[in-house]
Amino acid sequence: MRFFSDNAARACPAALAAITAADRLDTAYDGDAWSAQLDGALSELFETEVAALWVSTGTAANSLALAALCPPHGSILCHRDAHIQNDECGAPEFFTHGAKLLLAEGEGAKLNPETVGALLATVRNDVHQAQPAVLSITNATEYGLVYTVEETAALGDLCRERGLGLHLDGARFANAVASLGCAPADLTWRAGVDALSFGFVKNGGLSAECLVFFRPELTAATRYRRKRSGHLLSKGRYLAAQILAMLDGDVWLRNARAANDAAARLAAAAGAARLVHPVEANEVFIRVAAEEAARLRAQGFDFYDWGPGEARLVTAWDSDPTHVDALAAAIRAL
Amino acid sequence: MRFFSDNAARACPAALAAITAADRLDTAYDGDAWSAQLDGALSELFETEVAALWVSTGTAANSLALAALCPPHGSILCHRDAHIQNDECGAPEFFTHGAKLLLAEGEGAKLNPETVGALLATVRNDVHQAQPAVLSITNATEYGLVYTVEETAALGDLCRERGLGLHLDGARFANAVASLGCAPADLTWRAGVDALSFGFVKNGGLSAECLVFFRPELTAATRYRRKRSGHLLSKGRYLAAQILAMLDGDVWLRNARAANDAAARLAAAAGAARLVHPVEANEVFIRVAAEEAARLRAQGFDFYDWGPGEARLVTAWDSDPTHVDALAAAIRAL
Amino acid sequence: MRFFSDNAARACPAALAAITAADRLDTAYDGDAWSAQLDGALSELFETEVAALWVSTGTAANSLALAALCPPHGSILCHRDAHIQNDECGAPEFFTHGAKLLLAEGEGAKLNPETVGALLATVRNDVHQAQPAVLSITNATEYGLVYTVEETAALGDLCRERGLGLHLDGARFANAVASLGCAPADLTWRAGVDALSFGFVKNGGLSAECLVFFRPELTAATRYRRKRSGHLLSKGRYLAAQILAMLDGDVWLRNARAANDAAARLAAAAGAARLVHPVEANEVFIRVAAEEAARLRAQGFDFYDWGPGEARLVTAWDSDPTHVDALAAAIRAL
Amino acid sequence: MRFFSDNAARACPAALAAITAADRLDTAYDGDAWSAQLDGALSELFETEVAALWVSTGTAANSLALAALCPPHGSILCHRDAHIQNDECGAPEFFTHGAKLLLAEGEGAKLNPETVGALLATVRNDVHQAQPAVLSITNATEYGLVYTVEETAALGDLCRERGLGLHLDGARFANAVASLGCAPADLTWRAGVDALSFGFVKNGGLSAECLVFFRPELTAATRYRRKRSGHLLSKGRYLAAQILAMLDGDVWLRNARAANDAAARLAAAAGAARLVHPVEANEVFIRVAAEEAARLRAQGFDFYDWGPGEARLVTAWDSDPTHVDALAAAIRAL
Repeated sequence: MRFFSDNAARACPAALAAITAADRLDTAYDGDAWSAQLDGALSELFETEVAALWVSTGTAANSLALAALCPPHGSILCHRDAHIQNDECGAPEFFTHGAKLLLAEGEGAKLNPETVGALLATVRNDVHQAQPAVLSITNATEYGLVYTVEETAALGDLCRERGLGLHLDGARFANAVASLGCAPADLTWRAGVDALSFGFVKNGGLSAECLVFFRPELTAATRYRRKRSGHLLSKGRYLAAQILAMLDGDVWLRNARAANDAAARLAAAAGAARLVHPVEANEVFIRVAAEEAARLRAQGFDFYDWGPGEARLVTAWDSDPTHVDALAAAIRAL
Repeated sequence: MRFFSDNAARACPAALAAITAADRLDTAYDGDAWSAQLDGALSELFETEVAALWVSTGTAANSLALAALCPPHGSILCHRDAHIQNDECGAPEFFTHGAKLLLAEGEGAKLNPETVGALLATVRNDVHQAQPAVLSITNATEYGLVYTVEETAALGDLCRERGLGLHLDGARFANAVASLGCAPADLTWRAGVDALSFGFVKNGGLSAECLVFFRPELTAATRYRRKRSGHLLSKGRYLAAQILAMLDGDVWLRNARAANDAAARLAAAAGAARLVHPVEANEVFIRVAAEEAARLRAQGFDFYDWGPGEARLVTAWDSDPTHVDALAAAIRAL
Repeated sequence: MRFFSDNAARACPAALAAITAADRLDTAYDGDAWSAQLDGALSELFETEVAALWVSTGTAANSLALAALCPPHGSILCHRDAHIQNDECGAPEFFTHGAKLLLAEGEGAKLNPETVGALLATVRNDVHQAQPAVLSITNATEYGLVYTVEETAALGDLCRERGLGLHLDGARFANAVASLGCAPADLTWRAGVDALSFGFVKNGGLSAECLVFFRPELTAATRYRRKRSGHLLSKGRYLAAQILAMLDGDVWLRNARAANDAAARLAAAAGAARLVHPVEANEVFIRVAAEEAARLRAQGFDFYDWGPGEARLVTAWDSDPTHVDALAAAIRAL
Repeated sequence: MRFFSDNAARACPAALAAITAADRLDTAYDGDAWSAQLDGALSELFETEVAALWVSTGTAANSLALAALCPPHGSILCHRDAHIQNDECGAPEFFTHGAKLLLAEGEGAKLNPETVGALLATVRNDVHQAQPAVLSITNATEYGLVYTVEETAALGDLCRERGLGLHLDGARFANAVASLGCAPADLTWRAGVDALSFGFVKNGGLSAECLVFFRPELTAATRYRRKRSGHLLSKGRYLAAQILAMLDGDVWLRNARAANDAAARLAAAAGAARLVHPVEANEVFIRVAAEEAARLRAQGFDFYDWGPGEARLVTAWDSDPTHVDALAAAIRAL
């Protein structure tokens, strides 16, 4: 009964079926029939003209987006706990050729105009400092919190005022949309987002993430960067097909809702006192004594410790309801 | 009836089945049960201890290998027509942080100690020039020629003498082995090869290539580079599983033999006069007048022109025998 | 009466005379008679065999040192207020090809084994994080504090234990040595320092800094990096000559003592209550109300504000004693 | 009697005097009174508004210019014998973050629209190849030939047609202008040049080169790149002062004429049969048997062999007329 990570979950039936369906001879790279539909499918979903590129990891999506928005001599503003800072081994620095990440504070890995403004105030406007070029936020955050449409728009306004691009790391964008019940457009370009790393892998995809540019002109150089970084797969149709299949009939939303619901059940069982952060998506951070964590593990539940006295429980599109109920009961029984 | 590229072929049944079989919850990245078997499976195949990393493109495999063997201020020796020079949009420069490719000449994209030696002689040993650090060869070459064991070893000897690493771009390594009928070990480390980009995608894989280091210590930094370049997939098991499935029972060799056989049938039909290069793997370059090429296309055969008066025909593991026979007949009838 | 920066001071007579003396035809780059003496002169000063390279900026010296000690996928530990983080526009990232700077806290821009240890404890040892490769400290610090021999050695011990290189940004190394009255060797390699950016420009040089490697093998790749980054001047003799002239007869130490003494006079005038940091080198940070700062400026004293309610006064080798005395009196009179 | 290189010549009196004159306290970096005059002085010389930046090497000037005109995924067209390809240890690759140099042929290191066009024709317009972004030519060339105004303009026209930037490596621009007697404007922006590396060091400067942008907007990012690459010297006034002093009263032209005249005398002595290339600037390539070269050296003349049977003689602003006459006589006497 594993609650380690949505990263390691199975592929959903729609994604797997799409792989098989795409298994026919076609043009290589992104010249195939499936890749040709991506722009259209994503434009429809986002109610505006977007340019969409498949890649095979969130790290590649994030880094390509940042490279499109930040020169080598610029800086990227993000939260101290952002995935791009802590979990990508310097991929943003690699793809941007050495841009600097400037780190802001904020509860639950969430930023707001005040914390970003405070960070901006530390930078002198001269050639001795890498000038801020882009703000990167994560929704849902690394701690399972969700930026609302208004919160995103407030940051989008700040970016416009200060001449910054706005990147959204949406490894769990589906969970955020499912949590809010809003239009994807409202949480992105209408709120000022320029580029979205739209995650499918944590949500039932096999190997496809979608990099969405709301300013399609950013795609031109990115296509070269994708090739140059080895991310233009020969048989891209298998990636495009996964994305299309998960968009079709809102599989992506259904999957995210299932994960969120499982997390909500665990959160209810834990109760406010145990919760480190509000549970708004598919991650549950709870306070547990070492002895309690051991007791849960003894019952067959696997999860990560998250610093002393805390544990992280992650649900996924395919979290087994009986496992979830069992874990909920076990937490209640602590 | 498409003879464009093996790059665009279907995935073979073994690879597809492996995807489905790997579709269960496991540890993310390369912590899964399949990835754990890669070193062993490749060590067995190569009859020595190797370290093996899955990646999803040949470009990534080549570039990671080159970055392991060449510092940013070094240079990479390769053929003027090498894939790493002409078809990867500067990926070697990106991954090595700006190493310089020095280009040698040679019929059919093939190098030998004389041509490499001549290139080396153009470099002064001072800080004003990027010093040669690695030789990269492609087997089978971009023109479908095969380096024999002896030819490879002669280059390996030169590399040892001159302190160069030796990288083998094996996008069509399977075709070379199938063509020669030799042991994979003889064509690689026993001949002095340090790193091999072992291609599976052109040979029936879906999205997996295997980077094999015959000097396992080269893996340490490469693991970071793989992550940093966005090539550490979350669900790496799907890649490892493809490779293992194609190694199992020598699917990789059977696939390559099928492609080579199809090419041989086309070559026989073309006859020596039409052949631009000897056909030793799965690529056939023929001399055809524009009018002849048009006639073939009118009969439903798709392929690339390759400069004026030449065409490239590529066969694959799944080339339909009836299509091959039809094309052979059509060529004979020109 | 300018107390802005030692960076903008005049060149000292010895340095200027050396330029003129070096003005004769010689071999280009670093093949000249002066450059050939650098290793020897610095080895004598440091009582051990070192390798020394001239460069024309401290930023180049720091960055080349860091690139020698940290791979692109590694990280550099330094103080949050370090020059390499705040004042070099990402030069360390440029020269290291995207290494990440990890920032530690500490009064007066000073680090110690506890603060560095705490920072190290935040890094997981896996491929998802850039692994620490080097610690960089500044002596005298950006706030004019001096690491003692023992304090440096304590950090050196930590670096050895943890497998880190140790870089010393010595833009004001002369001021630190002058302040402590210790042997240069004690403050560097005997305390575990691997590479020193030995500053001459702030101390009366015209355009020469000296990068000193206490592990001479680090020089090999650095010579290429120096050329490749455009820092191998055609007429390097003018740089080498400055350094040699300032080492000769301990001009460097006399210059630093003069600057330190001037700062001490200002510090005495300011009194403990006004001093933000102890004054141990040639920088004086004082608490002054905006109105007081204005009053000083009205009397002809130029200096930088350093955040609200604080000002920075920097003395140099050539600070005019009458200006220093006048400023001291003006501070006393506030 | 050294005819090795103009790179190693002395500094001219005007440059040395400027150093001394600039030796007073001023604002650091390029905030000083001398740096502030550069744009104006160069704009006057070039009869148009330019932006000018001092740097301390031609390699830095070239690389910063190329980085301003070529993205990391682009390519740079130049001659096979260009300094940027052969003598800068990959500096263009370092500053551009891995752009690719594509090499054209041409007698005497000279390009023309046909050879450049032929090179362009080898590049496919797809993401698999680094797309040409800039053409870099050297005037006077590495073999001492001079592009005329018309020849430059023909290349400028080609660049405009093909959307390429045009960079002029003018390490010996002064020699070219002196040779042609044309207006500097005619040989640069009026002929389509976007950026010029205006060399002073080979022409009597001590350590200053001037990067001139005829499209001043290119300066914005370049200012950050200059800092980031460690090329923003603390006491930039010493560089600016050299340049201003050599522009003042056309010292730069007088120096170049002196060098050209010396070369012309050697060329006349050698005679057409011995000359490998026409002598149009300050370099003389002659055919000499090994025994003849030895005889010259025995008489005290130092110079580089330039491949078997050839030697390179370089004159400078300060070539001693008696040495030149002696060498001329010695050549005649061979």
